[in-house]
Amino acid sequence: MPTGWLAVAGLGPGDEALVTPEVRAALAEATDVIGYIPYVARIAPREGLVLHSSDNRVELDRAKLALNLAAQGRKVVVVSSGDPGVFAMAAAVFEALEAGAGAWQDIDIRVLPGITAMLAASARAGAPLGHDFCAINLSDNLKPWSLIEKRLRLAAEADFAMAFYNPRSKSRPQGFARALAVLQEACGDDRPVLFARAVSTADEVLRIMPLDKAQPDMADMRTMVIVGSSQTRIIERPAGPVLYTPRSVPEMVA
Amino acid sequence: MPTGWLAVAGLGPGDEALVTPEVRAALAEATDVIGYIPYVARIAPREGLVLHSSDNRVELDRAKLALNLAAQGRKVVVVSSGDPGVFAMAAAVFEALEAGAGAWQDIDIRVLPGITAMLAASARAGAPLGHDFCAINLSDNLKPWSLIEKRLRLAAEADFAMAFYNPRSKSRPQGFARALAVLQEACGDDRPVLFARAVSTADEVLRIMPLDKAQPDMADMRTMVIVGSSQTRIIERPAGPVLYTPRSVPEMVA
Repeated sequence: MPTGWLAVAGLGPGDEALVTPEVRAALAEATDVIGYIPYVARIAPREGLVLHSSDNRVELDRAKLALNLAAQGRKVVVVSSGDPGVFAMAAAVFEALEAGAGAWQDIDIRVLPGITAMLAASARAGAPLGHDFCAINLSDNLKPWSLIEKRLRLAAEADFAMAFYNPRSKSRPQGFARALAVLQEACGDDRPVLFARAVSTADEVLRIMPLDKAQPDMADMRTMVIVGSSQTRIIERPAGPVLYTPRSVPEMVA
Repeated sequence: MPTGWLAVAGLGPGDEALVTPEVRAALAEATDVIGYIPYVARIAPREGLVLHSSDNRVELDRAKLALNLAAQGRKVVVVSSGDPGVFAMAAAVFEALEAGAGAWQDIDIRVLPGITAMLAASARAGAPLGHDFCAINLSDNLKPWSLIEKRLRLAAEADFAMAFYNPRSKSRPQGFARALAVLQEACGDDRPVLFARAVSTADEVLRIMPLDKAQPDMADMRTMVIVGSSQTRIIERPAGPVLYTPRSVPEMVA
Protein backbone atom coordinates (compact mmCIF):
# COMPACT_ATOMS: atom_id res chain seq x y z
CA MET A 1 0.00 0.00 0.00
CA PRO A 2 1.36 3.45 -0.86
CA THR A 3 2.10 5.80 2.02
CA GLY A 4 -0.60 8.38 2.32
CA TRP A 5 -0.56 11.61 4.25
CA LEU A 6 -2.87 14.42 5.26
CA ALA A 7 -1.88 18.09 5.26
CA VAL A 8 -4.29 20.68 6.65
CA ALA A 9 -3.20 23.81 4.85
CA GLY A 10 -3.95 27.53 5.06
CA LEU A 11 -4.41 29.40 1.78
CA GLY A 12 -4.23 32.84 3.40
CA PRO A 13 -6.87 35.55 2.93
CA GLY A 14 -7.12 35.43 -0.86
CA ASP A 15 -4.08 36.95 -2.60
CA GLU A 16 -1.96 34.17 -4.13
CA ALA A 17 1.18 36.10 -3.07
CA LEU A 18 0.20 35.28 0.53
CA VAL A 19 0.28 31.49 0.05
CA THR A 20 3.46 30.06 1.60
CA PRO A 21 5.88 27.93 -0.46
CA GLU A 22 5.27 25.12 2.07
CA VAL A 23 1.58 25.05 1.15
CA ARG A 24 2.36 25.30 -2.58
CA ALA A 25 4.67 22.29 -2.29
CA ALA A 26 2.01 20.21 -0.53
CA LEU A 27 -0.57 21.13 -3.19
CA ALA A 28 1.89 20.17 -5.95
CA GLU A 29 2.27 16.66 -4.47
CA ALA A 30 -1.38 16.11 -3.57
CA THR A 31 -3.67 13.54 -5.14
CA ASP A 32 -6.77 14.98 -3.42
CA VAL A 33 -7.80 18.45 -2.27
CA ILE A 34 -10.76 18.76 0.08
CA GLY A 35 -12.53 21.86 1.32
CA TYR A 36 -15.33 24.37 1.29
CA ILE A 37 -16.40 25.25 -2.28
CA PRO A 38 -14.85 28.76 -2.58
CA TYR A 39 -11.50 27.58 -1.16
CA VAL A 40 -11.22 24.54 -3.44
CA ALA A 41 -12.09 26.88 -6.33
CA ARG A 42 -8.72 28.57 -5.73
CA ILE A 43 -6.84 25.34 -6.62
CA ALA A 44 -5.85 24.93 -10.27
CA PRO A 45 -7.05 21.59 -11.69
CA ARG A 46 -4.38 19.25 -13.02
CA GLU A 47 -4.14 15.64 -14.13
CA GLY A 48 -3.93 13.25 -11.22
CA LEU A 49 -5.57 15.66 -8.77
CA VAL A 50 -9.11 15.07 -7.50
CA LEU A 51 -10.93 18.12 -6.14
CA HIS A 52 -13.55 17.45 -3.45
CA SER A 53 -15.70 20.53 -2.78
CA SER A 54 -18.36 20.61 -0.11
CA ASP A 55 -20.72 23.15 1.38
CA ASN A 56 -20.28 24.99 4.65
CA ARG A 57 -21.17 23.31 7.96
CA VAL A 58 -20.06 19.80 6.98
CA GLU A 59 -16.58 20.13 8.49
CA LEU A 60 -16.64 16.75 10.24
CA ASP A 61 -17.74 14.89 7.10
CA ARG A 62 -14.92 16.58 5.23
CA ALA A 63 -12.44 15.62 7.96
CA LYS A 64 -13.53 11.96 7.88
CA LEU A 65 -13.25 11.84 4.08
CA ALA A 66 -9.73 13.27 4.34
CA LEU A 67 -8.66 10.74 7.00
CA ASN A 68 -10.14 7.84 5.04
CA LEU A 69 -8.43 8.84 1.81
CA ALA A 70 -5.08 9.29 3.58
CA ALA A 71 -5.50 5.88 5.24
CA GLN A 72 -5.99 4.42 1.75
CA GLY A 73 -2.63 5.83 0.68
CA ARG A 74 -3.79 9.07 -0.97
CA LYS A 75 -1.91 12.36 -0.51
CA VAL A 76 -4.56 14.65 0.81
CA VAL A 77 -4.61 18.41 1.38
CA VAL A 78 -7.52 19.87 3.31
CA VAL A 79 -7.66 23.58 2.49
CA SER A 80 -8.87 26.40 4.71
CA SER A 81 -8.71 30.08 4.00
CA GLY A 82 -6.41 32.00 6.32
CA ASP A 83 -4.72 29.74 8.85
CA PRO A 84 -6.14 26.22 9.31
CA GLY A 85 -5.62 26.40 13.09
CA VAL A 86 -7.78 29.50 13.63
CA PHE A 87 -11.52 28.76 13.52
CA ALA A 88 -10.92 26.40 10.62
CA MET A 89 -10.36 22.81 9.56
CA ALA A 90 -7.43 21.70 11.77
CA ALA A 91 -9.55 21.38 14.92
CA ALA A 92 -12.27 19.58 12.93
CA VAL A 93 -9.72 17.03 11.66
CA PHE A 94 -8.51 16.34 15.20
CA GLU A 95 -12.10 16.05 16.48
CA ALA A 96 -12.75 13.40 13.83
CA LEU A 97 -9.43 11.70 14.60
CA GLU A 98 -10.16 11.54 18.33
CA ALA A 99 -13.64 10.14 17.78
CA GLY A 100 -12.56 7.88 14.98
CA ALA A 101 -11.26 4.53 14.01
CA GLY A 102 -7.95 3.01 15.11
CA ALA A 103 -7.09 2.68 11.42
CA TRP A 104 -6.34 6.39 11.47
CA GLN A 105 -3.82 6.36 14.28
CA ASP A 106 -0.73 5.98 12.09
CA ILE A 107 -1.64 8.55 9.44
CA ASP A 108 1.00 11.22 8.89
CA ILE A 109 -0.89 14.44 9.67
CA ARG A 110 0.65 17.88 9.33
CA VAL A 111 -0.85 21.33 9.82
CA LEU A 112 0.63 23.95 7.46
CA PRO A 113 0.09 27.47 8.77
CA GLY A 114 -1.19 30.36 6.68
CA ILE A 115 -1.77 34.10 6.94
CA THR A 116 -4.88 34.37 9.08
CA ALA A 117 -7.50 37.00 8.32
CA MET A 118 -6.92 39.13 11.42
CA LEU A 119 -3.23 39.57 10.61
CA ALA A 120 -3.92 40.35 6.96
CA ALA A 121 -6.55 42.91 8.01
CA SER A 122 -4.26 44.35 10.67
CA ALA A 123 -1.43 44.73 8.14
CA ARG A 124 -3.67 46.59 5.68
CA ALA A 125 -4.91 49.00 8.35
CA GLY A 126 -1.59 49.55 10.15
CA ALA A 127 -0.86 47.59 13.33
CA PRO A 128 -3.96 47.47 15.56
CA LEU A 129 -2.81 44.12 17.01
CA GLY A 130 0.65 45.45 17.93
CA HIS A 131 0.01 44.95 21.65
CA ASP A 132 -1.84 42.22 23.61
CA PHE A 133 -5.03 41.06 21.87
CA CYS A 134 -7.64 38.33 21.61
CA ALA A 135 -9.44 36.55 18.78
CA ILE A 136 -13.10 35.61 19.18
CA ASN A 137 -15.39 33.76 16.78
CA LEU A 138 -18.73 35.60 16.97
CA SER A 139 -20.72 32.68 15.59
CA ASP A 140 -22.88 30.96 18.18
CA ASN A 141 -23.34 27.86 16.03
CA LEU A 142 -20.93 25.90 18.25
CA LYS A 143 -21.08 27.71 21.59
CA PRO A 144 -23.73 29.48 23.65
CA TRP A 145 -24.24 33.19 23.05
CA SER A 146 -23.84 33.84 26.79
CA LEU A 147 -20.20 32.71 26.55
CA ILE A 148 -19.55 35.17 23.73
CA GLU A 149 -20.95 38.05 25.78
CA LYS A 150 -18.93 36.99 28.82
CA ARG A 151 -15.74 36.92 26.74
CA LEU A 152 -16.48 40.34 25.23
CA ARG A 153 -16.88 41.89 28.68
CA LEU A 154 -13.76 40.24 30.11
CA ALA A 155 -11.69 41.11 27.02
CA ALA A 156 -12.75 44.74 27.38
CA GLU A 157 -11.86 44.69 31.08
CA ALA A 158 -8.44 43.19 30.19
CA ASP A 159 -8.07 46.04 27.66
CA PHE A 160 -7.19 43.68 24.83
CA ALA A 161 -7.53 44.74 21.24
CA MET A 162 -10.10 42.29 19.85
CA ALA A 163 -10.30 40.57 16.48
CA PHE A 164 -13.69 39.13 15.53
CA TYR A 165 -14.10 36.28 13.06
CA ASN A 166 -17.46 35.39 11.47
CA PRO A 167 -19.15 38.52 12.82
CA ARG A 168 -22.42 38.12 10.99
CA SER A 169 -24.20 35.78 8.61
CA LYS A 170 -27.64 35.58 7.03
CA SER A 171 -28.61 32.83 9.46
CA ARG A 172 -27.43 34.89 12.47
CA PRO A 173 -28.40 38.50 11.71
CA GLN A 174 -28.92 39.58 15.35
CA GLY A 175 -25.76 38.49 17.17
CA PHE A 176 -23.44 41.14 15.82
CA ALA A 177 -25.84 43.94 16.84
CA ARG A 178 -25.81 42.54 20.38
CA ALA A 179 -21.99 42.27 20.31
CA LEU A 180 -21.70 45.90 19.21
CA ALA A 181 -24.02 46.99 22.02
CA VAL A 182 -21.91 45.13 24.60
CA LEU A 183 -18.72 46.63 23.18
CA GLN A 184 -20.11 50.18 23.11
CA GLU A 185 -21.12 49.84 26.75
CA ALA A 186 -17.78 48.32 27.80
CA CYS A 187 -15.38 50.35 25.62
CA GLY A 188 -17.11 53.70 25.11
CA ASP A 189 -18.19 55.58 22.00
CA ASP A 190 -14.77 56.72 20.80
CA ARG A 191 -12.97 53.39 20.68
CA PRO A 192 -11.69 52.85 17.10
CA VAL A 193 -13.08 49.95 15.11
CA LEU A 194 -11.95 48.50 11.78
CA PHE A 195 -14.21 46.74 9.30
CA ALA A 196 -11.98 44.95 6.82
CA ARG A 197 -13.87 43.15 4.06
CA ALA A 198 -12.35 40.67 1.59
CA VAL A 199 -8.81 41.68 2.51
CA SER A 200 -6.17 41.18 -0.19
CA THR A 201 -8.76 40.51 -2.90
CA ALA A 202 -10.16 42.75 -5.63
CA ASP A 203 -13.20 43.36 -3.41
CA GLU A 204 -11.19 44.70 -0.45
CA VAL A 205 -12.79 47.55 1.51
CA LEU A 206 -11.42 48.97 4.76
CA ARG A 207 -13.43 51.29 7.03
CA ILE A 208 -12.15 52.80 10.28
CA MET A 209 -14.50 54.68 12.60
CA PRO A 210 -15.37 55.27 16.26
CA LEU A 211 -17.45 52.54 17.87
CA ASP A 212 -20.60 54.68 18.11
CA LYS A 213 -20.66 54.96 14.30
CA ALA A 214 -20.40 51.19 13.81
CA GLN A 215 -23.56 49.59 12.41
CA PRO A 216 -24.42 45.89 12.34
CA ASP A 217 -24.88 45.82 8.56
CA MET A 218 -21.27 46.95 8.02
CA ALA A 219 -20.18 43.32 8.56
CA ASP A 220 -20.83 40.09 6.74
CA MET A 221 -19.09 36.69 6.64
CA ARG A 222 -16.24 38.11 4.54
CA THR A 223 -15.52 40.86 7.08
CA MET A 224 -12.96 40.89 9.89
CA VAL A 225 -13.83 43.32 12.64
CA ILE A 226 -11.06 44.63 14.90
CA VAL A 227 -11.85 46.79 17.94
CA GLY A 228 -8.86 48.59 19.44
CA SER A 229 -7.70 48.66 23.05
CA SER A 230 -7.83 51.90 25.06
CA GLN A 231 -4.39 52.72 23.60
CA THR A 232 -5.23 52.17 19.92
CA ARG A 233 -5.06 55.33 17.88
CA ILE A 234 -5.38 56.73 14.39
CA ILE A 235 -2.74 58.64 12.40
CA GLU A 236 -4.33 60.75 9.69
CA ARG A 237 -2.27 60.72 6.49
CA PRO A 238 -2.84 62.04 2.96
CA ALA A 239 -3.09 58.43 1.71
CA GLY A 240 -5.66 57.52 4.37
CA PRO A 241 -5.74 56.76 8.07
CA VAL A 242 -3.41 54.33 9.86
CA LEU A 243 -4.81 52.38 12.81
CA TYR A 244 -2.25 51.14 15.31
CA THR A 245 -1.69 50.13 18.91
CA PRO A 246 1.59 51.29 20.45
CA ARG A 247 3.86 48.67 22.00
CA SER A 248 3.87 50.29 25.43
CA VAL A 249 1.29 51.01 28.11
CA PRO A 250 2.21 53.82 30.53
CA GLU A 251 2.29 52.95 34.22
CA MET A 252 -0.51 55.41 35.04
CA VAL A 253 -2.94 53.91 32.52
CA ALA A 254 -2.54 50.31 33.61
CA MET B 1 14.00 62.39 -6.67
CA PRO B 2 13.24 58.68 -7.01
CA THR B 3 10.13 57.37 -5.29
CA GLY B 4 11.00 55.56 -2.10
CA TRP B 5 8.88 53.23 -0.08
CA LEU B 6 8.91 51.38 3.19
CA ALA B 7 7.68 47.80 3.66
CA VAL B 8 7.52 46.31 7.14
CA ALA B 9 7.76 42.60 6.43
CA GLY B 10 7.38 39.38 8.38
CA LEU B 11 9.91 36.61 7.71
CA GLY B 12 7.92 33.95 9.56
CA PRO B 13 9.35 31.76 12.32
CA GLY B 14 12.53 30.62 10.56
CA ASP B 15 11.86 28.11 7.78
CA GLU B 16 12.34 29.78 4.39
CA ALA B 17 9.34 27.79 3.09
CA LEU B 18 7.18 29.94 5.40
CA VAL B 19 8.18 33.27 3.82
CA THR B 20 5.38 34.55 1.59
CA PRO B 21 5.98 35.39 -2.07
CA GLU B 22 4.82 38.95 -1.28
CA VAL B 23 7.70 39.37 1.18
CA ARG B 24 10.17 37.75 -1.24
CA ALA B 25 9.14 40.20 -3.95
CA ALA B 26 9.66 43.20 -1.66
CA LEU B 27 13.09 41.91 -0.64
CA ALA B 28 14.03 41.41 -4.29
CA GLU B 29 13.24 45.08 -5.04
CA ALA B 30 14.75 46.56 -1.87
CA THR B 31 17.79 48.82 -1.71
CA ASP B 32 17.97 48.61 2.10
CA VAL B 33 17.03 45.99 4.67
CA ILE B 34 16.84 47.02 8.31
CA GLY B 35 16.34 44.89 11.40
CA TYR B 36 17.56 43.05 14.45
CA ILE B 37 20.83 41.21 13.78
CA PRO B 38 19.56 37.60 13.57
CA TYR B 39 16.69 38.56 11.27
CA VAL B 40 18.88 40.55 8.85
CA ALA B 41 21.27 37.58 8.87
CA ARG B 42 18.53 35.62 7.06
CA ILE B 43 18.70 37.96 4.03
CA ALA B 44 21.10 36.94 1.24
CA PRO B 45 23.51 39.77 0.37
CA ARG B 46 23.46 41.02 -3.20
CA GLU B 47 24.83 43.93 -5.17
CA GLY B 48 22.79 47.08 -4.67
CA LEU B 49 21.39 45.98 -1.32
CA VAL B 50 22.55 47.57 1.93
CA LEU B 51 21.98 45.52 5.09
CA HIS B 52 21.49 47.53 8.31
CA SER B 53 21.67 45.29 11.39
CA SER B 54 21.09 46.59 14.89
CA ASP B 55 20.82 45.16 18.36
CA ASN B 56 17.64 44.50 20.29
CA ARG B 57 15.83 47.31 22.11
CA VAL B 58 16.56 50.03 19.55
CA GLU B 59 13.31 49.61 17.66
CA LEU B 60 12.54 53.34 17.44
CA ASP B 61 16.00 54.19 16.09
CA ARG B 62 15.55 51.49 13.49
CA ALA B 63 12.11 52.87 12.57
CA LYS B 64 13.46 56.41 12.16
CA LEU B 65 16.32 55.20 9.98
CA ALA B 66 13.82 53.34 7.80
CA LEU B 67 11.55 56.38 7.44
CA ASN B 68 14.49 58.67 6.66
CA LEU B 69 15.86 56.35 4.00
CA ALA B 70 12.44 55.92 2.38
CA ALA B 71 11.96 59.72 2.42
CA GLN B 72 15.27 59.99 0.54
CA GLY B 73 13.92 57.72 -2.20
CA ARG B 74 15.34 54.39 -1.03
CA LYS B 75 13.30 51.16 -1.18
CA VAL B 76 13.38 49.97 2.37
CA VAL B 77 12.29 46.69 3.96
CA VAL B 78 12.19 46.51 7.75
CA VAL B 79 12.27 42.83 8.71
CA SER B 80 10.71 41.18 11.74
CA SER B 81 10.53 37.52 12.48
CA GLY B 82 7.02 36.09 12.49
CA ASP B 83 4.42 38.74 11.66
CA PRO B 84 5.50 42.39 11.83
CA GLY B 85 2.17 43.42 13.38
CA VAL B 86 2.42 41.11 16.42
CA PHE B 87 4.82 42.43 19.09
CA ALA B 88 7.20 43.52 16.35
CA MET B 89 8.34 46.39 14.16
CA ALA B 90 5.09 47.64 12.57
CA ALA B 91 3.89 49.37 15.74
CA ALA B 92 7.37 50.85 16.28
CA VAL B 93 7.34 52.33 12.76
CA PHE B 94 3.95 53.94 13.36
CA GLU B 95 5.07 55.27 16.75
CA ALA B 96 8.02 56.95 15.03
CA LEU B 97 5.77 58.18 12.22
CA GLU B 98 3.27 59.71 14.63
CA ALA B 99 5.99 61.46 16.64
CA GLY B 100 7.97 62.42 13.59
CA ALA B 101 8.57 64.96 10.94
CA GLY B 102 6.06 66.16 8.36
CA ALA B 103 8.57 65.04 5.72
CA TRP B 104 7.43 61.49 6.39
CA GLN B 105 3.72 62.03 5.80
CA ASP B 106 3.75 61.09 2.12
CA ILE B 107 5.92 57.98 2.39
CA ASP B 108 4.35 54.87 0.90
CA ILE B 109 4.26 52.48 3.88
CA ARG B 110 3.02 48.90 3.62
CA VAL B 111 2.89 46.16 6.23
CA LEU B 112 3.44 42.68 4.76
CA PRO B 113 2.08 39.95 7.02
CA GLY B 114 3.98 36.81 7.97
CA ILE B 115 3.44 33.53 9.81
CA THR B 116 3.49 34.57 13.46
CA ALA B 117 5.16 32.34 16.04
CA MET B 118 1.99 31.30 17.86
CA LEU B 119 0.40 29.99 14.66
CA ALA B 120 3.56 28.14 13.63
CA ALA B 121 3.80 26.59 17.11
CA SER B 122 0.10 25.77 17.12
CA ALA B 123 0.40 24.05 13.74
CA ARG B 124 3.32 21.91 14.90
CA ALA B 125 1.49 20.80 18.04
CA GLY B 126 -1.96 20.29 16.49
CA ALA B 127 -4.56 23.05 16.87
CA PRO B 128 -4.51 24.46 20.42
CA LEU B 129 -5.73 27.85 19.10
CA GLY B 130 -8.70 26.32 17.27
CA HIS B 131 -11.20 28.14 19.50
CA ASP B 132 -11.20 31.66 21.04
CA PHE B 133 -7.76 32.71 22.29
CA CYS B 134 -5.55 35.60 23.32
CA ALA B 135 -1.95 36.62 22.72
CA ILE B 136 0.03 38.27 25.51
CA ASN B 137 3.60 39.57 25.49
CA LEU B 138 5.05 38.54 28.86
CA SER B 139 7.84 41.11 28.76
CA ASP B 140 7.35 43.96 31.21
CA ASN B 141 9.87 46.19 29.45
CA LEU B 142 7.07 48.34 28.01
CA LYS B 143 4.17 47.80 30.42
CA PRO B 144 3.77 47.34 34.16
CA TRP B 145 3.87 43.79 35.50
CA SER B 146 0.56 44.39 37.29
CA LEU B 147 -1.17 44.71 33.91
CA ILE B 148 0.26 41.37 32.79
CA GLU B 149 -1.07 39.63 35.91
CA LYS B 150 -4.46 41.28 35.48
CA ARG B 151 -4.66 40.09 31.88
CA LEU B 152 -3.65 36.54 32.85
CA ARG B 153 -6.43 36.35 35.43
CA LEU B 154 -9.08 37.81 33.11
CA ALA B 155 -7.98 35.59 30.21
CA ALA B 156 -8.30 32.53 32.46
CA GLU B 157 -11.74 33.69 33.60
CA ALA B 158 -12.76 34.14 29.95
CA ASP B 159 -11.47 30.60 29.32
CA PHE B 160 -9.32 31.68 26.40
CA ALA B 161 -6.46 29.53 25.20
CA MET B 162 -3.43 31.79 25.71
CA ALA B 163 -0.32 32.28 23.60
CA PHE B 164 2.65 33.90 25.31
CA TYR B 165 5.36 35.77 23.43
CA ASN B 166 8.73 36.63 25.01
CA PRO B 167 8.07 34.50 28.08
CA ARG B 168 11.52 34.82 29.61
CA SER B 169 14.86 36.50 29.03
CA LYS B 170 18.15 36.74 30.89
CA SER B 171 17.27 40.29 31.97
CA ARG B 172 13.84 39.18 33.26
CA PRO B 173 14.35 35.75 34.86
CA GLN B 174 11.58 36.11 37.48
CA GLY B 175 8.52 37.18 35.52
CA PHE B 176 7.73 33.86 33.90
CA ALA B 177 7.82 32.04 37.24
CA ARG B 178 5.25 34.53 38.53
CA ALA B 179 3.14 34.06 35.40
CA LEU B 180 3.19 30.28 35.81
CA ALA B 181 2.12 30.64 39.45
CA VAL B 182 -0.83 32.86 38.46
CA LEU B 183 -1.83 30.43 35.71
CA GLN B 184 -1.60 27.36 37.97
CA GLU B 185 -3.84 29.09 40.50
CA ALA B 186 -6.33 30.25 37.86
CA CYS B 187 -6.37 27.21 35.54
CA GLY B 188 -5.55 24.24 37.80
CA ASP B 189 -2.78 21.65 37.70
CA ASP B 190 -4.03 19.59 34.77
CA ARG B 191 -4.41 22.29 32.14
CA PRO B 192 -2.20 21.39 29.14
CA VAL B 193 0.70 23.64 28.26
CA LEU B 194 2.95 23.66 25.20
CA PHE B 195 6.55 24.84 25.14
CA ALA B 196 7.53 25.28 21.50
CA ARG B 197 11.14 26.34 21.00
CA ALA B 198 12.66 27.54 17.72
CA VAL B 199 9.71 26.30 15.72
CA SER B 200 10.39 25.39 12.08
CA THR B 201 14.19 25.56 12.54
CA ALA B 202 16.76 22.79 13.03
CA ASP B 203 16.67 23.53 16.77
CA GLU B 204 12.91 22.92 17.12
CA VAL B 205 11.78 21.21 20.33
CA LEU B 206 8.13 20.76 21.39
CA ARG B 207 7.09 19.73 24.89
CA ILE B 208 3.50 19.20 26.04
CA MET B 209 2.67 18.66 29.72
CA PRO B 210 0.18 19.50 32.44
CA LEU B 211 0.59 22.94 34.01
CA ASP B 212 1.86 21.58 37.35
CA LYS B 213 4.86 20.07 35.55
CA ALA B 214 5.78 23.35 33.83
CA GLN B 215 9.02 24.90 35.10
CA PRO B 216 10.21 28.46 34.49
CA ASP B 217 13.49 27.33 32.91
CA MET B 218 11.63 25.46 30.17
CA ALA B 219 11.21 28.80 28.35
CA ASP B 220 13.61 31.31 26.85
CA MET B 221 13.27 34.10 24.27
CA ARG B 222 13.04 31.59 21.42
CA THR B 223 10.12 29.76 23.08
CA MET B 224 6.40 30.22 22.48
CA VAL B 225 4.27 29.06 25.38
CA ILE B 226 0.64 28.13 24.77
CA VAL B 227 -1.71 27.30 27.65
CA GLY B 228 -4.94 25.62 26.66
CA SER B 229 -8.50 26.54 27.58
CA SER B 230 -10.60 24.25 29.79
CA GLN B 231 -11.60 22.40 26.60
CA THR B 232 -8.09 21.82 25.21
CA ARG B 233 -7.11 18.16 25.14
CA ILE B 234 -4.40 15.75 24.07
CA ILE B 235 -4.69 12.85 21.62
CA GLU B 236 -1.97 10.27 22.22
CA ARG B 237 -0.63 8.84 18.96
CA PRO B 238 2.28 6.55 18.06
CA ALA B 239 4.05 9.50 16.42
CA GLY B 240 3.58 11.71 19.49
CA PRO B 241 0.82 13.67 21.16
CA VAL B 242 -1.52 16.11 19.40
CA LEU B 243 -2.71 19.15 21.35
CA TYR B 244 -5.96 20.68 20.17
CA THR B 245 -8.96 22.73 21.20
CA PRO B 246 -12.30 21.60 19.78
CA ARG B 247 -14.38 24.13 17.87
CA SER B 248 -17.38 23.79 20.14
CA VAL B 249 -18.16 24.48 23.79
CA PRO B 250 -21.10 22.53 25.23
CA GLU B 251 -23.92 24.57 26.75
CA MET B 252 -23.42 23.04 30.21
CA VAL B 253 -19.73 24.02 30.38
CA ALA B 254 -20.16 27.66 29.43
